[in-house]
Amino acid sequence: MGPISGPIVILAGSGQLPLLLADSLRRRGVEHRILAFRGFAAPPTRRRADAVIHLLDVKRILRCLEGWRPGAVILAGAVRRPNPAVFLSAFSAFRNRRELSALLEKGDDQLLRSAVGLLEQEGHRVVGIIDLAPELLAGSGCLTRAQPAEEDLRAITIGTTVLADLSPYDMGQAAVVAGERIVALEGPEGTDRMLARVRGFRRLWSRARVHAGGVLVKTAKRGQDLRVDLPAIGPRTMKEAHAAGLRGVAVGSGVTLILDQPQTLALADRLGLFLVGVAGPTGLVERTA
Amino acid sequence: MGPISGPIVILAGSGQLPLLLADSLRRRGVEHRILAFRGFAAPPTRRRADAVIHLLDVKRILRCLEGWRPGAVILAGAVRRPNPAVFLSAFSAFRNRRELSALLEKGDDQLLRSAVGLLEQEGHRVVGIIDLAPELLAGSGCLTRAQPAEEDLRAITIGTTVLADLSPYDMGQAAVVAGERIVALEGPEGTDRMLARVRGFRRLWSRARVHAGGVLVKTAKRGQDLRVDLPAIGPRTMKEAHAAGLRGVAVGSGVTLILDQPQTLALADRLGLFLVGVAGPTGLVERTA
Repeated sequence: MGPISGPIVILAGSGQLPLLLADSLRRRGVEHRILAFRGFAAPPTRRRADAVIHLLDVKRILRCLEGWRPGAVILAGAVRRPNPAVFLSAFSAFRNRRELSALLEKGDDQLLRSAVGLLEQEGHRVVGIIDLAPELLAGSGCLTRAQPAEEDLRAITIGTTVLADLSPYDMGQAAVVAGERIVALEGPEGTDRMLARVRGFRRLWSRARVHAGGVLVKTAKRGQDLRVDLPAIGPRTMKEAHAAGLRGVAVGSGVTLILDQPQTLALADRLGLFLVGVAGPTGLVERTA
Repeated sequence: MGPISGPIVILAGSGQLPLLLADSLRRRGVEHRILAFRGFAAPPTRRRADAVIHLLDVKRILRCLEGWRPGAVILAGAVRRPNPAVFLSAFSAFRNRRELSALLEKGDDQLLRSAVGLLEQEGHRVVGIIDLAPELLAGSGCLTRAQPAEEDLRAITIGTTVLADLSPYDMGQAAVVAGERIVALEGPEGTDRMLARVRGFRRLWSRARVHAGGVLVKTAKRGQDLRVDLPAIGPRTMKEAHAAGLRGVAVGSGVTLILDQPQTLALADRLGLFLVGVAGPTGLVERTA
């Protein structure tokens, strides 16, 4: 990446990522500003924000960026989970409801890709976490005390392969594989709800003790624009994976955000789960150097 | 199919299919017997059965078949939804719990394929609904008053394509597509629960009026052994599809069972849903002659 001249602007959605990123930049003395999206950004993010603007108030966002003359712009945190209140109020800002619903129908990827396109059209440089704070991404190899067994490695390969096969479609980035069986594929509900679903199956079927174990596999799609959509896990993923009876979690190394990394790993260790960073759709567990 | 000499034996699992098939054979004067699986076959099936035997009491099943000298054997009705009571009692019949759970881990397809293999090893001819009662399968073209619109046809193509791409994996046979987005892929929970999940999303997100419409697409996998596992829909599918806000249902023509066909079509018409039979993974809606 070439040198950046001017402040980094964090376009801040929900969750902890915007502040994790801001902290990372602050530690290294990198000048930055936070533009928080109203209705998405969490209260702590909004409190530290330099501006709080509605996601769909595109004019104000662009005017604000113009004033700050950013060296680069980064999207951080989700804006994806539809929040009825947000969209209802957004309707009032848009003349053309049809246009908005057509946009929303398109799925997360295309929606956010349009946003990046718009920012670039306006002359902004859009970068990703991998450019600014790669230490927030999953490393490769086994990151926990618990290690995947042979059958877990097979399940991981099935998971990464099916996710690669689903790459052309605009849908989830995660799968649960138990034995040689795909137990769940993530839709727009997100990973946590998918894991809750698996927990539900298991509660129903538990007495038969079938489909024991299993792995959550989460990674980026082939050709995914990681500036737009970065697969993420965190402490809650570990809790849900454990509650769903899984043995561990595999994530794409270098392409998956680990929110609150120390707590995530500590929790995995306490729950006896493994967490591995795997490379690409081959599902090979890379060795840590 | 060559001529069958000897009675047809219906190996009867859950649902209405065993008796729908028996009625179809009776109407045509085809000699048949019903062997109902205890714990799966519904009470009306068990009442009409010539024998009621535990699914896992393989010895007694084979002995019974030997006595009947069937011209062909057909599996009808599901034995797939894990019923804890059934499997618990099955454990007592099996010396080797490990062997059983290894079998159960394998997923429906492989489990039932082993059953067909076993029956064929014993010299039985295993046939499918398509051989004995093709009138129970979905025809092609639009079967309802409501017709799919252009965008529904696009959604159907996406659905059949993603299901074809998922063919190599042992998982569900159904998808929900809204706009150009895959909203859900069926796992071991089955179609009805997948539709309930979609209804859940929509209740949550309804005020945003996003992802309106949508289609349930259900069809066989490439190379699927239809004697073993036949995709099925019925009145409940229509109710759930309507409750999930869908505009209609597309099924693989000639490879999908329509349970209680007159009631299913009448209900679809009453609810304003379309039902189309489509050919293969191209998703083309065939014209009815």
